[in-house]
Amino acid sequence: MGSHSLHINRRQSHLKWSNAITPVLKVDSGAVVTFDALDASNGQVSTSTSAEDVSNFDINLADPVYGPVYVNGAEPGDALEVEILDLKTADWGWTAVMPGFGLLADEFREPQIKIWDLPADKPYAVFKEGIRIPLRPFLGEMGVAPEADGEFSTIPPLITGGNIDCRHLTVGSKLFLPVKTPGALFSCGDGHAAQGDGEVCGTAIETSMHATLRLTVRKNHDWVASPHYFAAPLAPIAGFEDRGSYAALGINSDLLEATRDALRGIINYLTATRGLTRTEAYMLASIAVDLKLAEVVDMPNFGVAATLPLNIFQGE
Amino acid sequence: MGSHSLHINRRQSHLKWSNAITPVLKVDSGAVVTFDALDASNGQVSTSTSAEDVSNFDINLADPVYGPVYVNGAEPGDALEVEILDLKTADWGWTAVMPGFGLLADEFREPQIKIWDLPADKPYAVFKEGIRIPLRPFLGEMGVAPEADGEFSTIPPLITGGNIDCRHLTVGSKLFLPVKTPGALFSCGDGHAAQGDGEVCGTAIETSMHATLRLTVRKNHDWVASPHYFAAPLAPIAGFEDRGSYAALGINSDLLEATRDALRGIINYLTATRGLTRTEAYMLASIAVDLKLAEVVDMPNFGVAATLPLNIFQGE
Repeated sequence: MGSHSLHINRRQSHLKWSNAITPVLKVDSGAVVTFDALDASNGQVSTSTSAEDVSNFDINLADPVYGPVYVNGAEPGDALEVEILDLKTADWGWTAVMPGFGLLADEFREPQIKIWDLPADKPYAVFKEGIRIPLRPFLGEMGVAPEADGEFSTIPPLITGGNIDCRHLTVGSKLFLPVKTPGALFSCGDGHAAQGDGEVCGTAIETSMHATLRLTVRKNHDWVASPHYFAAPLAPIAGFEDRGSYAALGINSDLLEATRDALRGIINYLTATRGLTRTEAYMLASIAVDLKLAEVVDMPNFGVAATLPLNIFQGE
Repeated sequence: MGSHSLHINRRQSHLKWSNAITPVLKVDSGAVVTFDALDASNGQVSTSTSAEDVSNFDINLADPVYGPVYVNGAEPGDALEVEILDLKTADWGWTAVMPGFGLLADEFREPQIKIWDLPADKPYAVFKEGIRIPLRPFLGEMGVAPEADGEFSTIPPLITGGNIDCRHLTVGSKLFLPVKTPGALFSCGDGHAAQGDGEVCGTAIETSMHATLRLTVRKNHDWVASPHYFAAPLAPIAGFEDRGSYAALGINSDLLEATRDALRGIINYLTATRGLTRTEAYMLASIAVDLKLAEVVDMPNFGVAATLPLNIFQGE
């Protein structure tokens, strides 16, 4: 029995999390399963999609996940370990500003889209001349069925995982999800070729993904009450040695507003010193800026840092 | 004129930010100034301080800053660049849980203190057997006078800086502060030997600090509307190669609660698998755990990652 026999195809998708969905595959703990997942638009975006088309995007079809896979022996109180063995993106991807979506949705009301080339022989994608983004593929969605009965959108993340959009879950990493129903019922999707912590404009470099995952039951892991993970050290990428970062701090008595202020700060830096339009800066921030909580205790003000690695700027 | 002539001593402190404080030194743009700063307790903590003593800590004396320094030529609309040239800690430091203070103040009501050895010949400090913290000194407080008249506590950070507790401002980094009053009126203090992003229990490895800073006026930097910084690449420390990290995600529709959930998750991991008490785990998290905003757009739920580098655990 080859590894290809444990495969989830593009038609085996669902658009809600539910513990009532019939599994499409049953596997033993330790099985390696491959998933062929469409991008988060569910195939609505193509390389010829225009900004105008983005307005017609049907959100009800967004964020399909593929599965669910029943893992024999998984019971509530256990964790399901998901080891990320291999991830292959398509040869193109997209990043969009969608009206009503994103951390600064009230300030960026016009739709926009960028189509990226993701050639298999390059470890980076070109944002525009002089700006290259190292590719660190991951799945935005990995989750198990929720405890509560009913159907739940796949767009917000849940404590059982789902759309956690956690860029650290690259190849070599392991995600631990709290099992809430027998068999766990694991599904995944939402391929990303690169993203910053926060995914601030609402989209990463979105792409379809061929994923190879090992699913293992870890008995009696009740301290895993939400998604936990081991993030593997990042393999170096030639040309992207650490050259430090530039950051803007948002300082505000409301944590979300501090986060928005930090993002505005880095956008202002990018437009004032790097020649980007505001929309370009917002999209670049979604792909490359990491949001860090610098301090959360010096009340009444929080400090959030929007942090841009400087190695994306070539030739400096 | 040697560099020692531009020096701020331990008696040249203030406990409020104000644009009305008379500067203790006037320097030209580009000057190198040394600061001899007491720790954030203002000398109230000694190596013999007990947990019980922490309850008697006078918060009104906390977070002194040293200065202010008037920088000739600085005007509103400029940025003051603060280049961190050298930082030397004392040979000891402290971390405390202070009742009423910290991200989980409602759950950790008992005072606690740990006194750290910071021997000058070691690049790390020992938390307990098998757990070592690499030392990355920085100043928790760096700021200029606020625009508004009046006196403002030095405890919360302001858009003019102050207690930003940003661990990335290590030697080689540069902080940019928005000038709001002629001469900028720069002060600093609050030495930290190490801290995680968030400083979750409310204190870092607190220590007195001898700091050497270069103060330079950058004209017409009005995009610097809050503290911005260039964070230099971190110099490697032997024995602390990247071995990946373990993280817990907090998922919640309130961003602050998601942050608290993430912290609770990593505390649960540390107590369940690493043999720490809950209070030890909380204090270790303040020193070594980084809070990252994994996703802030998949409404209605935010995802925050409390991330612990695994290289602090020796011999694994």
